[in-house]
Amino acid sequence: MTPQAKADWIAADWGTSNLRIWALDSGGGELAHRSSGKGMGTLGRDEFEPALLELIEDVLRPDARTPVIICGMAGSRQGWAEAPYKTVPCAPPSLTDATHVKAEDPRLDVRILPGIKQLKPADVMRGEETQIAGFLAENADFTGTLCLPGTHSKWVALQDGVVERFRTCMTGELFALLSAHSVLRHSLSESQLDNAAFEVAVQECAERPQAIAANLFGIRAAGLVADLSPEAARARLSGLLIGAELAAMKQDFDLSKVMLLGSDKLAKAYRSALGCLGHQAVLLDADAITLSGLSLAYSSYQKVSS
Amino acid sequence: MTPQAKADWIAADWGTSNLRIWALDSGGGELAHRSSGKGMGTLGRDEFEPALLELIEDVLRPDARTPVIICGMAGSRQGWAEAPYKTVPCAPPSLTDATHVKAEDPRLDVRILPGIKQLKPADVMRGEETQIAGFLAENADFTGTLCLPGTHSKWVALQDGVVERFRTCMTGELFALLSAHSVLRHSLSESQLDNAAFEVAVQECAERPQAIAANLFGIRAAGLVADLSPEAARARLSGLLIGAELAAMKQDFDLSKVMLLGSDKLAKAYRSALGCLGHQAVLLDADAITLSGLSLAYSSYQKVSS
Repeated sequence: MTPQAKADWIAADWGTSNLRIWALDSGGGELAHRSSGKGMGTLGRDEFEPALLELIEDVLRPDARTPVIICGMAGSRQGWAEAPYKTVPCAPPSLTDATHVKAEDPRLDVRILPGIKQLKPADVMRGEETQIAGFLAENADFTGTLCLPGTHSKWVALQDGVVERFRTCMTGELFALLSAHSVLRHSLSESQLDNAAFEVAVQECAERPQAIAANLFGIRAAGLVADLSPEAARARLSGLLIGAELAAMKQDFDLSKVMLLGSDKLAKAYRSALGCLGHQAVLLDADAITLSGLSLAYSSYQKVSS
Repeated sequence: MTPQAKADWIAADWGTSNLRIWALDSGGGELAHRSSGKGMGTLGRDEFEPALLELIEDVLRPDARTPVIICGMAGSRQGWAEAPYKTVPCAPPSLTDATHVKAEDPRLDVRILPGIKQLKPADVMRGEETQIAGFLAENADFTGTLCLPGTHSKWVALQDGVVERFRTCMTGELFALLSAHSVLRHSLSESQLDNAAFEVAVQECAERPQAIAANLFGIRAAGLVADLSPEAARARLSGLLIGAELAAMKQDFDLSKVMLLGSDKLAKAYRSALGCLGHQAVLLDADAITLSGLSLAYSSYQKVSS
């Protein structure tokens, strides 16, 4: 059995529900990529270090301090240590903005990157700022809109490397709540979507977004009196919610130039919805971009730690 | 101890969550008003009659058949017996439209009033049609809008005794889901509302209803970065959702002449919200109107049963 190779540094994306780490060598080679369900939401303050060690203990050098660069909710007030927000307009945070956490274990040198806040309209992000940095590492002069689909999707206006403003939409969380817990749950298929029904719903909501509250119950009613299929019903719920989101976002963001940070089913649904409104969007691999953002931060580690 | 007086007839409002009955004499006098948690949603088909008998056994005459007039979800396909919908435009259903249920107990003569459906846009109601009938019993020539606040609020356009069209909004259910299960639950007070924050939110949503998806997360963010109080946050959630509902409904209904069937906190919130948009609305006692609708149906019982 080959002994486990040791890492030069650790990248970590620590969200509310999950912890994901990459063990890396200084050339960017990936020694390990692991995850656990020990997200910020499940941990008390003194449980963060053990949760991290569970995933990385075997890649730590016994005789050196290994840098651990973290983004995400671990830096919130209820997290491991607070990394105070930067405020827009601003460039994404770098390692000089990070909070240096005093770890118990002498093998760890832990830095948590801050999130970004906006005062008016009030908004916050933690984790996505590092993806933005990763995107900018490859596309420094991009001016346009980033969309990061998720439970809470983020829309970001970028200009000359600066986050000008952003908005968060609860669309993903609304979909989850409505499909699992509302009266609509009786009407929806488990997972199949009907693309035509999705597109009709996006169009309807884009044209008349304020009708959303009535259109949602209409899904249930159409199942009862108009034989709407469960597949069409699920697609319609998704289309109405994403359509309403686009109707809102088009007021503040340039939808003609959207880069979607994601390549899963959800990101593809956003691309379809943008397509219904006549906009082409580009899908990018969110995972790779997260790692790229953390690597960018690590690139100034020598400067910060010396 | 006086022996229990016997009823000439029973009125019942049988919804998804509750069963409420009134035991009445033929002059309209109320002998008993009772309720149980045995709503349609909790019962199999053969459990309806026992659930009803639990509440009314002691008011039944041993030697006669007592009419039981029921409105609500007990008449749905998953209920006691299906009472097929009438279709708009139509007058509210009367006893001639009711489904005659074959009860096991010879003392019962059970009639379930149908709901109303609309094909385009698809919509349904069960129970509210009887409240509409009760309202029309006193206001036969009312032309304007009825609003019935609730988990699923109903908006109804009435003209010359006819339900022209209606819409259902899931606003109440959305509020319940978001306040109990979403990320916003961390930001909200238990029950206190801040009236000023409610009014600001109604105005905002009325002017820019499509921003609702972003404004919802903004409640959480404003708690984090702008010290929004939990009371203001709760009021803001309520105001955004009701404001969006009004923005949708004003396209199809005359908001200058709204009768609100309800007198509880929720109905008062709708009245405040309509007030923010410059419309006066009148509150009516929903319970009394339900009984009045069932009594109207009972008034033609002799004709139907002979």
